[in-house]
Amino acid sequence: MKQASVFSNDPWGRLHSLLEQKRYSKIYVVCDENTEKYCLPFFHSIVSFSYDSFCIPSGEQNKNLTQLELLAAQLIQKSVDRNSLLIALGGGVVCDLVNFCASVLLRGIDSVLIPTSLMAMCDAAIGGKTAVNLLNYKNQIGTFYSAQGILFDPIFLESLDERNLKNGFVEMVKHSLIESPPYIQDFLSLGWPVEKDLLKSLIKKSIRSKTEIIEQDPTELGLRKILNYGHTIGHAIESVCISRKEDILHGEAVAIGMVAESYISSKMFGWKNHIIEQISEYLKFFFPMNINIEGKETEIIDALSFDKKNEMGKIQFVLLEKPGSPVRDQKVSVELILGALNYVKNC
Amino acid sequence: MKQASVFSNDPWGRLHSLLEQKRYSKIYVVCDENTEKYCLPFFHSIVSFSYDSFCIPSGEQNKNLTQLELLAAQLIQKSVDRNSLLIALGGGVVCDLVNFCASVLLRGIDSVLIPTSLMAMCDAAIGGKTAVNLLNYKNQIGTFYSAQGILFDPIFLESLDERNLKNGFVEMVKHSLIESPPYIQDFLSLGWPVEKDLLKSLIKKSIRSKTEIIEQDPTELGLRKILNYGHTIGHAIESVCISRKEDILHGEAVAIGMVAESYISSKMFGWKNHIIEQISEYLKFFFPMNINIEGKETEIIDALSFDKKNEMGKIQFVLLEKPGSPVRDQKVSVELILGALNYVKNC
Repeated sequence: MKQASVFSNDPWGRLHSLLEQKRYSKIYVVCDENTEKYCLPFFHSIVSFSYDSFCIPSGEQNKNLTQLELLAAQLIQKSVDRNSLLIALGGGVVCDLVNFCASVLLRGIDSVLIPTSLMAMCDAAIGGKTAVNLLNYKNQIGTFYSAQGILFDPIFLESLDERNLKNGFVEMVKHSLIESPPYIQDFLSLGWPVEKDLLKSLIKKSIRSKTEIIEQDPTELGLRKILNYGHTIGHAIESVCISRKEDILHGEAVAIGMVAESYISSKMFGWKNHIIEQISEYLKFFFPMNINIEGKETEIIDALSFDKKNEMGKIQFVLLEKPGSPVRDQKVSVELILGALNYVKNC
Repeated sequence: MKQASVFSNDPWGRLHSLLEQKRYSKIYVVCDENTEKYCLPFFHSIVSFSYDSFCIPSGEQNKNLTQLELLAAQLIQKSVDRNSLLIALGGGVVCDLVNFCASVLLRGIDSVLIPTSLMAMCDAAIGGKTAVNLLNYKNQIGTFYSAQGILFDPIFLESLDERNLKNGFVEMVKHSLIESPPYIQDFLSLGWPVEKDLLKSLIKKSIRSKTEIIEQDPTELGLRKILNYGHTIGHAIESVCISRKEDILHGEAVAIGMVAESYISSKMFGWKNHIIEQISEYLKFFFPMNINIEGKETEIIDALSFDKKNEMGKIQFVLLEKPGSPVRDQKVSVELILGALNYVKNC
């Protein structure tokens, strides 16, 4: 599967070149209520083509088949055809849902993703995974599908509050932990918040890291699994909170997940104590404010056994022999997982 | 896209070999109420592996995202994982829906299709197109996805009544019209019904024809479009009847569609009169009993403009310069389409 080009230098010029080359019959832009208000006006001012726009309701709880069906129905009623282009203008939910829609509508039409959140820039929009949730479990239904382009304009970061910036930053911390040589020390010394120009260069580095990994394994048969570091427990926590209608962001759950999985790694591979302590201390910056995992342990273990990365009832993890040295397909006992959750609670 | 193998010699032996090689963690079989009653007992008696079975409601009106969601949710609750196998045991609706489900569940798990209707054996199961309907329009949401195998056992034909045999036979007539050299004359002299052993060999010929075309153009960029002969008007009639809750089968609609599109071809390419008359006379065997297109003309034209094979508002057809010589991407005026519908009415 060819990976989508990232339009980061002269992004809007490259978008217009793509349209000139492809001569789409129609262009549709999909936002959510937030990006309709904060990003669509800028989009409208900078593009020179005409388009129809649609708005989907924001939030992870709306990344489902019902919204997919509603969106597809609206597109059909607006005469979408196989030579149409679908543009996603939004965060992870919009990018995942719209690109899934593009991949299945009329058995596949072209898409361009314009991630407007830091999370979507560093994670959701990169790598050709599309998805919707099902039954409170994350990303159960989806496809591998390459967009025609991913447009990266840091101007959209201006529309983000501190919580959403932190949410995306977590994925960048993850890259610093799994990549060899690890650059987690750089992050530890940065603290929070991060100066704007530095943030932009870190984002580009993060996109490059992720793209390099994915190009070697687009459909997650092996290597790509390392990108799931922190996500096994992170997804389980996110699923449990969504089903309880508690307000948690993906990156917040992954921050907790990374502390838990670093704890597990430290126990299984004998890390020195100060390493796990430094990492936990730093990642606490990114924990959710009002979420407590106390009392959710059983639900988290249940959700783990539903994770689609598992096979035949085994809970499999990506762990770190040490920072920068990920190992895949590691079986972990329920006791050690409970120990890790306990460690997180006392962080 | 690699095309699925057709298991036609020693089909059940080949299925068991596949399972031995792949060592699936779980196997799920999906039927509808008809195949659960008439085909699952035979299936159960002949296979030596254990499986969970599910039943979806029969009928084209149930080939939708709601049923997809229900099926996916049941599979998740039964602990489906990425190393599971999904087997479709049924006609076109079951094969299309189950293979779509396999293509998007956990971003794709393996599938085997066991078509039990003549229609599914000759058409729906072959060629890697999966789909569900949306808003009364056929196959608006779907994927291109190859099953691991398509198991062809003519024993399932025993479970079919005359109407369902005719329904599938129409696709075989279509192959005889679009393939070069055309062998429509063979069909004209056969009449109806067709002797059983002859039917089996015609089915195999038909599967080979379709597979050869698809191997050259799996994602319908060009050549494969000729398989849509009769389907442009056929799908429109089917959509209109479904939305009116009138009982029509796919092949019945395509039989009408082929007469209409042969009429259009005869006018645009100057066929001799006796050719269109012979073809119409023969295809009338396969028309639906209780469906009249009188009074539906406007709805049919509306539905045509929604066909996903069209671009930018043009209604595009596959036509025949003469039998055996298909031509693609032919624009046809609304007047001539109405003339063709009128010809059908007076057939």
